[in-house]
Amino acid sequence: MQYLGIDLGGTNIAAGLVDEHGEVLFDLSCPTGSARGPQAVVDDMAALCAELLQLAGATYRDVAAIGVGTPGVCDARRGTLVFANNLHFTDVPIAAMLQQALPLPVFLENDATAAGIAEHELGALRGVDNGLFVTLGTGIGGCLFIDGKVYAGTHGYAAEIGHMVTHAGGDVCTCGLAGCWERYAAAPALIRAGRAAAKAAPRSLLHHIVNGNLQNLTAKDVVDCARAGDETALSVFHAYVHELALGVIGLIHLYDPAVVCLGGGVAQAGEFLLQPLKEAVAAGVMYKALPHARLCLTALAGDAGIVGAAMLGKAAGK
Amino acid sequence: MQYLGIDLGGTNIAAGLVDEHGEVLFDLSCPTGSARGPQAVVDDMAALCAELLQLAGATYRDVAAIGVGTPGVCDARRGTLVFANNLHFTDVPIAAMLQQALPLPVFLENDATAAGIAEHELGALRGVDNGLFVTLGTGIGGCLFIDGKVYAGTHGYAAEIGHMVTHAGGDVCTCGLAGCWERYAAAPALIRAGRAAAKAAPRSLLHHIVNGNLQNLTAKDVVDCARAGDETALSVFHAYVHELALGVIGLIHLYDPAVVCLGGGVAQAGEFLLQPLKEAVAAGVMYKALPHARLCLTALAGDAGIVGAAMLGKAAGK
Repeated sequence: MQYLGIDLGGTNIAAGLVDEHGEVLFDLSCPTGSARGPQAVVDDMAALCAELLQLAGATYRDVAAIGVGTPGVCDARRGTLVFANNLHFTDVPIAAMLQQALPLPVFLENDATAAGIAEHELGALRGVDNGLFVTLGTGIGGCLFIDGKVYAGTHGYAAEIGHMVTHAGGDVCTCGLAGCWERYAAAPALIRAGRAAAKAAPRSLLHHIVNGNLQNLTAKDVVDCARAGDETALSVFHAYVHELALGVIGLIHLYDPAVVCLGGGVAQAGEFLLQPLKEAVAAGVMYKALPHARLCLTALAGDAGIVGAAMLGKAAGK
Repeated sequence: MQYLGIDLGGTNIAAGLVDEHGEVLFDLSCPTGSARGPQAVVDDMAALCAELLQLAGATYRDVAAIGVGTPGVCDARRGTLVFANNLHFTDVPIAAMLQQALPLPVFLENDATAAGIAEHELGALRGVDNGLFVTLGTGIGGCLFIDGKVYAGTHGYAAEIGHMVTHAGGDVCTCGLAGCWERYAAAPALIRAGRAAAKAAPRSLLHHIVNGNLQNLTAKDVVDCARAGDETALSVFHAYVHELALGVIGLIHLYDPAVVCLGGGVAQAGEFLLQPLKEAVAAGVMYKALPHARLCLTALAGDAGIVGAAMLGKAAGK
């Protein structure tokens, strides 16, 4: 049996057809464009699913369920997206809307939770009792495991780790607070800093790589240029690692997990990100004489969102 | 049967003789003076216990055990204080040292954990599954309950909530990090701000209450003057509530507990602190349409440290 998994992100909708071992057979994506409103976004989700089935030469009968990972707080029981600050959506009955287009059971969960579940089932958190999955994307999401189970909190929104204030009085966040960690350590922060630095250094590789069209600069460009030794990019990257470490250190002091696993777009920087982050975290934790959480990278590459969402359908079908 | 409870704080050592219902029969305290080194501090702890027994007309035979709550990380099994940044103690075998002076079983635990256990057994967190106890004293400590049990973390230092960075690049903390929450929201922050404000406002009640001897100004003075309507004190107090709220909001986003219970010296400000804190937290949480943790005050007044420590002995004796 196969599963459709949809990762509804702040920037893109990614969808995939996934087998029962978590292997992505086909995947597609399109921009989210949440400003168009919920119906247009759900229509695109349905269209991606239909395209995937066509690609696979499959029909709805080959698929057991659709899982959807979304930003924000979900009421998984009702299949409703209660609130998502990155999408500006409130109380959207995504499962019901999607089912009008696709005759399949639909399961909904917070995207970071879905990705964390996939990581815990199939990836770097397998067998870990107390672990934290951190997604570094448009925002920062988290999924906390305690005693091997997701800790969802009392009202369903535990581990909203992007919204601890690290810079009191700082940049205003989409959530309304000033100085949230995700304003400083999610992908857009790396991009913004990269653009500003490239603008100030027109001879840098960082400027050259986009031919001076700084609006085209991506987080991957900053990482690639830093990896290539460009001083401008390196300086931006090191400052970013510092911001990332600040938050991870706080999370270690708060959760004291055995493992912190990094996923999401920025984690694709791989060991180039992980090594300096490990050093900065080790230098900053308060109990330097004691062990602290092992930091690692997702073992599911860029597909944790899709696989996690698909695994929701599988888990629910058990 | 009775229990001796010792609350080893950054500022004072408080000790009490406690009955099995958690009632403090007699209590005494003395300054910690941790700069004198561990042996002098343990000697004072033993002397307080001896005085308490004398006051009660009791002997060691009337006491089942001694419980000690200390700042920092404890190895409860070995009875060792592994590391305490506020005391500058490392690897001190407190239980063994204390037993040389007092022929009783000694149980050691982090002070915030001990206070949280008392609150959960006898106070405002009774019957709460997911709850957070927050001590506002010389530093800020925490004790997290998940599914009705203390969550100690993987290495024994979960809920070190004073050491999440809220002011990146800010004041250097005793733990070595810059900008830890406890630098801005523990009692010394209130005192420092009170002194600075009083110095700048020699006609304020805040200045008058200590006859201009600003080094004598306490956190309670700031609260008392604010309560009396002194504008200078009110401004300091409101800024303090703002800092406290910043951290509590972060903790709600991270732990999503059902209840956050405030204890420690600053919590003695009572409803005068709780009401504006509730308003600031409600205004700041990201999911305003959803319920969030109920905030409340310790039901054990200033004795949670002593009772918590004493209850360690009782719990261990079961």
